[in-house]
Amino acid sequence: MNFSSKLLENAVAEFAKLPGVGQKTALRLVLHLLNQDKEEVQKFSSAITKLREEIRFCEVCHNISDQRVCEICSSHKRDHSLICVVEDTRDVMAIENTSQYNGVYHVLGGLISPMDGVGPSDLQVDSLIERLKNDEIKEVIFALSATMEGDTTIFYLHKKLKQFNISISTIARGIAFGGELEYVDEITLGRSIATRVPYENSLSR
Amino acid sequence: MNFSSKLLENAVAEFAKLPGVGQKTALRLVLHLLNQDKEEVQKFSSAITKLREEIRFCEVCHNISDQRVCEICSSHKRDHSLICVVEDTRDVMAIENTSQYNGVYHVLGGLISPMDGVGPSDLQVDSLIERLKNDEIKEVIFALSATMEGDTTIFYLHKKLKQFNISISTIARGIAFGGELEYVDEITLGRSIATRVPYENSLSR
Repeated sequence: MNFSSKLLENAVAEFAKLPGVGQKTALRLVLHLLNQDKEEVQKFSSAITKLREEIRFCEVCHNISDQRVCEICSSHKRDHSLICVVEDTRDVMAIENTSQYNGVYHVLGGLISPMDGVGPSDLQVDSLIERLKNDEIKEVIFALSATMEGDTTIFYLHKKLKQFNISISTIARGIAFGGELEYVDEITLGRSIATRVPYENSLSR
Repeated sequence: MNFSSKLLENAVAEFAKLPGVGQKTALRLVLHLLNQDKEEVQKFSSAITKLREEIRFCEVCHNISDQRVCEICSSHKRDHSLICVVEDTRDVMAIENTSQYNGVYHVLGGLISPMDGVGPSDLQVDSLIERLKNDEIKEVIFALSATMEGDTTIFYLHKKLKQFNISISTIARGIAFGGELEYVDEITLGRSIATRVPYENSLSR
């Protein structure tokens, strides 16, 4: 693209670095911002800078938090003997939205992915093991994506966690609620049959 | 959505104001920025602020420009007797990419749209008329979207421009090159038949 202004080109190039944003979308977003008041644009850019500069993570579960220890970790209403291991803050939000979980979390900050150069040392693994040593944990639930990276991470963590006398579980995999059989992919359907559960158990929610 | 941090919530809210960006996409973009170096995020937000603060428009055609008069308007290689009237800078870029046009431009900065409260006084109409008074213009080409707003704008401008002794044209409308007839909408196809051109003329490109 030929830009009539270096400033414009620069701003578009920065937007186009965002995931899923191409040059055309970037240009559309930048022109939208150009049409806004200066104060609006100032608010937009300072919200981002401020977030990046002042962001803090909970010292216990490593979730994004404004306090030293996040609300969930400092709540007395939560079950602190139950830890749900997730990839990032989005997963915490998704699980909190279900209102089905009352334990605490541990945010790894990613998944093991040799292709992307992410190893166990890049994740919050050591602090998870420290938590298991010190606290009275009864169960660890892995709520990771059902991908190669997720499975690799579970496999690695499971080996590390075997030394502790706690039960280790993963969230159930199978066909989604409301899912029609004919649209389910073969792997999911095949595994759903192989890991079928007694009907009485499937009702216990 | 329940955010674990006010800073995060704030940044997501700002991103979600962008056109076509919902809460989920905004969160994805914000978390992407959080994973970048502080310098990268600083570059991103300063590119936007700088653009908004220092943006300048060409005094002649009102296209975005870093100079007082843009490159196209100050070029001696362009035909200054031919003005192409467009909505915004994106259209200039699109037409420049075709390499089919050697005249100059006039950027209106929008289209007449009573529904959005945009009237002729919000557009660069007066300066277009000034240009036609002073300069030796032979032809004005309207290259506006084939929408209600585009047609309204052309209709309004055409009335204003009749006083001058110049030819007024609009870009051709019809089926796109490479377009298959069965997929063309009825209005376009019907108008294409009504405004058919002699075969010899259709070759003169």
